[in-house]
Parts: sequence; C-alpha cells; structure tokens
Amino acid sequence: MMRQEKILLTPGPLSTSLATRTAMLKDWGSWDGDFNALTASVCADLLAIANGQAQHCCIPLQGSGTFAVEAAIGTLVSKSSKILVLNNGAYGQRMQKIAQKIGLNVATLSWPDGVPVDPAALDAALSADPSIGYVGLIHCETATGLLNPLSDIADIVASHGAELIVDAMSSFGALDIDLARMPICALIAASGKCLEGVPGMGFVIAKTSAIALAHGNSPSLALDLADQYDYLQRTGQWRFTPPTHVVAALRAAIDQYQAEGGRLTRLARYTANAKVLIESLSQAGLALFLAPELQAPIILTFHAPRHPEYQFAAFYQAMSQRGFLLYPGKLTTVETFRVGCIGAIDPAQLQQAAHAIIDVLTQLGWLNSQPKHSTIQ
Amino acid sequence: MMRQEKILLTPGPLSTSLATRTAMLKDWGSWDGDFNALTASVCADLLAIANGQAQHCCIPLQGSGTFAVEAAIGTLVSKSSKILVLNNGAYGQRMQKIAQKIGLNVATLSWPDGVPVDPAALDAALSADPSIGYVGLIHCETATGLLNPLSDIADIVASHGAELIVDAMSSFGALDIDLARMPICALIAASGKCLEGVPGMGFVIAKTSAIALAHGNSPSLALDLADQYDYLQRTGQWRFTPPTHVVAALRAAIDQYQAEGGRLTRLARYTANAKVLIESLSQAGLALFLAPELQAPIILTFHAPRHPEYQFAAFYQAMSQRGFLLYPGKLTTVETFRVGCIGAIDPAQLQQAAHAIIDVLTQLGWLNSQPKHSTIQ
Ligand SMILES: Cc1ncc(COP(=O)(O)O)c(C=O)c1O
Ligand SMILES: Cc1ncc(COP(=O)(O)O)c(C=O)c1O
Repeated sequence: MMRQEKILLTPGPLSTSLATRTAMLKDWGSWDGDFNALTASVCADLLAIANGQAQHCCIPLQGSGTFAVEAAIGTLVSKSSKILVLNNGAYGQRMQKIAQKIGLNVATLSWPDGVPVDPAALDAALSADPSIGYVGLIHCETATGLLNPLSDIADIVASHGAELIVDAMSSFGALDIDLARMPICALIAASGKCLEGVPGMGFVIAKTSAIALAHGNSPSLALDLADQYDYLQRTGQWRFTPPTHVVAALRAAIDQYQAEGGRLTRLARYTANAKVLIESLSQAGLALFLAPELQAPIILTFHAPRHPEYQFAAFYQAMSQRGFLLYPGKLTTVETFRVGCIGAIDPAQLQQAAHAIIDVLTQLGWLNSQPKHSTIQ
Repeated sequence: MMRQEKILLTPGPLSTSLATRTAMLKDWGSWDGDFNALTASVCADLLAIANGQAQHCCIPLQGSGTFAVEAAIGTLVSKSSKILVLNNGAYGQRMQKIAQKIGLNVATLSWPDGVPVDPAALDAALSADPSIGYVGLIHCETATGLLNPLSDIADIVASHGAELIVDAMSSFGALDIDLARMPICALIAASGKCLEGVPGMGFVIAKTSAIALAHGNSPSLALDLADQYDYLQRTGQWRFTPPTHVVAALRAAIDQYQAEGGRLTRLARYTANAKVLIESLSQAGLALFLAPELQAPIILTFHAPRHPEYQFAAFYQAMSQRGFLLYPGKLTTVETFRVGCIGAIDPAQLQQAAHAIIDVLTQLGWLNSQPKHSTIQ
C-alpha cells in the first residue's frame, strides 16, 4: 500500500521509524488515566534526558516549536525586566521578534551568520546593563548548523545573576545539555527533532521555582506555561486537547532512544552521519559554510556550486526523484543548501545521499567532480 | 499487536477510523511540494464545507482548538474596538477569558448553563453600545451540548454593522453553517471533532478582507493568522513546522467525510447516535439536562443518578472496563455526565454503550432500572 518512503534530510519534520509512526494507530481519551500516565512518563523522561530532576519541571505544549519559544519567554520574562537575545542567525532573529511582539523590553547582541556568540562580549553587555534579567540563546542555530558555546554562556549569565533561556530545539537529546552542571532557567525543544518523534508538540524544561513565580505573567492564555503546569499538576491532564497521537509517537520514539543507548549513542550516529556527508561532498568540491569546529552534527550548510545557472529548486526536484528531500539554505547573503543529519537515518543512507547529490549536480552540469584540491581555493 | 480499541464517547479526541490513523504512517517534508498540495487541498475542502469560497479563506494553525480561538480573536479584533462575548457555558467563559487576557476591550452577555443566547437581548445590547465592533459566539456549547441560534444571531450582528466570530469547534462539518447565507466574519474549528481527524491543529475560516486589514493586530507571533495566511499565500507552506501527520490524517478524514456523503449524512449519523442514547437512557430513568429542542446531536449531558453515593470516577472506571470512555460533566451546580455522539461510531455502538451505562449503574446500585414514567417527574 505504501510506496518506498523518501528520506527526509531536513531538521524536522524528519524521517521517523516505523515503530514511532505505528504508535499513532491507537486513539487515546485525553481525560483517561492511561493517557495521563503517558504524558507523565514522557515528561519524566524528557526531564531525565536533561538531567533536570533536581530543580526543573517539564511542561508540554501543543503546537510547533515556535509556540513553545513564545510561551517560555512570555511566561518567564516579567514585563518589568529586560531580555537580551543573542542572535547569530534566523532563529535568534525569530526569538528577538517574538520578544518584541509580545511587548517585552528587549536588547540584542548580534553576530553574522556563522560567527558564534562571544562570551566576552556577553559578559561586557551584562556588566554594562544591570537591568538585563534574562538572556535568550539558540543552542544550535539551525539556520547554519552552528553550535553556540552553551556552557560558557550559562556560567557568564549566572555570574551576573541573570537567567538563561535556551532554544535547544535542534540540539535537545543529542548535544550536551546537563542541567545539574549548567545554570539554565529554561530549555525549549520539540517532539520532532533529535528525539525523532513526529511534529506537533513542544516542551519547556523550566526551573520549578521560576514557574511558580510566573503566574499571571503570560500575555496569552493558550501559551501560558504556568497555567499549563498548574493544571497538569492538579489533574494529570493537559489544559486543552492534547495532540494524543503525537504524544504516543513521542513515547515510542523515547523508548527507541533509550534502547539505542541514550544521548551519547544518538550523538555518535549523528556525528557519523555528518562525517560521511562532509567527507564525500567536500571531496567533490562542495564546501561547508562553517568552520568544522563550529559545526554541530545536526544540519550541515554547504555552499551551492558556483555555477551561474545553479537553482536550488531544480536540484531539490532531482534529489526528490532519487528519494531524498533536501533543505534550502537560510542565508541571505550567500547561496547555500542544507542537509540534515538527524532522524531515523544512518551513515549508509547518508552515503547514498551524498552520492546522489554529487551525481545530480554533475548531471545538471553544475559540478565538476574533481579531486578536492582543484576546486577548493 | 493492538488490543481491541476502546470507544471514545468524548467530543474530541474521539474514535477515528483506521483509515484516518493509517494515513499517519508516512513522513512528509514540510518544505515539499507534495505536502504543500496536501495543505492546499485540505484548506480548499474546509472552505467548501462552510460554503465560503466567495469571500473567505481557510487558515490552518498548529495547536489545539483554543489556540485557534485565541489566534482568531487576537488577529481580527482591533485594540480600538470592543468585542461582546455571548456566554452560556464553559467555552463562552473561555472566550471571554482569552479576550481579557490578550488585553481587548470586552463586554459579556451571559445566560445560565442550558439557556440559549437570546437574539433580542443581543439586539438590545448592540443598540445600547455602538462601540461593539465584534461579537463572539459559541455555536454548539460543548459544556452542555446546547445549540445556539447561529443564523438569527448572525443576522442581528450584521444589522448593527458588527462582525461575528464563531467558535464552531464542535459543530463544524455536522451542523448547518453556510457562509453564503449567514453573515459571519470568522469560523473557528479543529481537526479532531466532527471531521473525525486526530487532534493537533485548528483552523480559522475568515473573511479574506478582514484578514487583509488585520496585519499588525496580533499581540502574538505564533498566533498571528494574518502572518500565517500571508506566508501560506506566498510559499504554500505553513510559517512554522506543521503537524504533518495530523494534516495527513485530516486529509484522509475529509476523504471519508466526502465518501460518506458530506455534512447531511454525517449529521444524520450523529442524530441517530444521539437518538439511541437518549431513548435508551431516558427509558432507564436517566434524564437529559437540556430540553430536547436545544440539544445538538454532538454531545449529550445527562443528570447523574440521584443516589447519595454516586461518583463519576467509579462509573468512568467501570465503563472503561467495558470498553467505553465517557466524559465528565462540566457544570458546577448540578452533577452530570456527558456522552459524545461524534466520531467514527454508529448507532449500534451507541446502543451497546447505552446498555453498558445502564448495566454498570445498576450493578453499582445507583440506578433502579424502571420504566420511564416512574422515574421522570
Ligand atoms: C533552533 C530552532 N528554533 C526554533 C525552531 C522553530 O520550530 P518550529 O518550526 O517547530 O516552530 C526551529 C525549527 O527548526 C529551530 O531549529
Ligand atoms: C466549543 C469549543 N470551543 C473550544 C474548545 C477548545 O478546544 P481544544 O480543547 O482543542 O483547545 C472546545 C473543545 O472541546 C469546544 O468544544
């Protein structure tokens, strides 16, 4: 009945396992004890993945990841304080836009695409403006694939007595985030990224004490995390209809995550995926946008071939016919394309993808497959 | 592999068909043309169900129904205007709370649970306060199952030059809503109600001209429908990661809706479901809360048996063991329980459910199964 599935080389939605999708074949009553237990087990496991059992709680939220980002900022940052957004890409920009839109007092420190947040500059900014109570960071900036130095940033924010809110959408579950070691007020992520669930819910892992102080802060009813948490605590239920099948898929995805060996094993697989792609494509003359030491093994940004007729749309179509879905670049100044390393995919599939990319670009006449030294300057 | 599924007699999430759930076995790229086509076809069909092709557009939104309610009000109602919320139950109250929370100018007209909105009182209120630019209505008040007189209300609102925003969450697709005939600014509904999809997305069918005027209104980024619509128009894509599997399930559910014969056939099935329940339960001495002429065939509220030891929790558990999930009452002054008539269920199953209800309550000692005339006053 099903055709051969295409492989999603995209950072969410991504390719999920059949076991994860099969978990959606059952209907759940949202008022039912069985479903409450499902929610509780998912939240407990998410909290444990971040090692946050001591001081944090996990609050699930309906909607996409952006809904959870807006909910976290709107619930946690009080109107009388100020948030400093650290921006080095499209998702940093989005966080800034959200903070402005909901009427917060916002300052921004920006770096160009591909330049990591500079802890010293952050330190200076916090010294210069003691009214900054919150700092917003994108852990892995999915727009480029860049990994920001979370641990250093967390220490600096804490040394100024401020609170750190981390968009860990594309890093949670794979990259190192340890709430017992790193002073972080809130982590934001979603079902359909490195946990390899299907999209449809986000979650925020927040200091329980911060949530307790946040009642009445949120300018939204739907996005009020303090209210959501309260209701969950009192009833075991989500405040509004939960995406039951998405929650069940996430439960199955976490089961597989644990069976695979947890965070380090998952990171090892993604790292192997990234390695295959980087080696094959750079050998064919396709250069990574980022310096290797800044590159997270989550999503890779490659320079497009420097051919005057290159068009992503045609490249995408040809790759789609080969069974691989790529992702467009998200940079305004330079032509790039992106390849995701996450999802229920392994190095053998990434090797096939790399071959297909080289083959397609060569056939389109946009790439001269030559040894590395002749095409990289 | 699967146990026998329980039947959800709840107004969403509800029992879906296997074909609907099976549609979630495929992963979709959110940037892909195939997925854009899926979104477009779902939106076109939703618009057609409401007969709104002439002046309205359909805007899907991630999250539960409440998210779509907040998005509709926040996007459409300008801060310089006023919204009058017509409240005769828990969802009317919620709409009022949302409007207050997002900082709108709100007035409320309230009726007790089970008393329909009175068009004459609305007419008088609109005459008395010309600053009211918007009226918010719950079409079917799911808290009781009451049907409000939509067509009359729409005419009155229009006669005052105001705009009507209708929460049609539990009525859309089954009850009569005809945008070509009824002057309505916006209809709000969700995937997991009478369309029999799975929960995880809402949608708003709004006058295209009203959306065009609404840019910049929304106090939220995630819940900004004007932005969402713009982006969809420009790119064919949702602004943020869509719940791809939920959308695919809704597509399958709409296919089945059309194959079944559309709105009137679906309404006929729900009406038959309601009839079986009402007849069987009232014969056993369980009385409907609402007068029959106010009752929508969506969800039925029954008075709990008047036994001093009656407890919904034990009743629920016993019914769950028989394979049926009931819904608690949502009234504060009187003890009730609710039974949903919607979902992929038919009169034969409702007959079994009615027998189980009577049997369970009799075994628990809370009901004397006697002929109708002896127990209803
Ligand atoms: C770092 C980051 N933040 C936020 C988002 C937004 O998530 P969503 O598209 O689910 O709203 C993404 C999505 O990829 C992301 O990578
Ligand atoms: C009339 C009405 N409005 C709003 C809602 C809220 O929808 P959700 O629970 O999906 O947020 C419901 C849910 O049943 C409803 O019946």
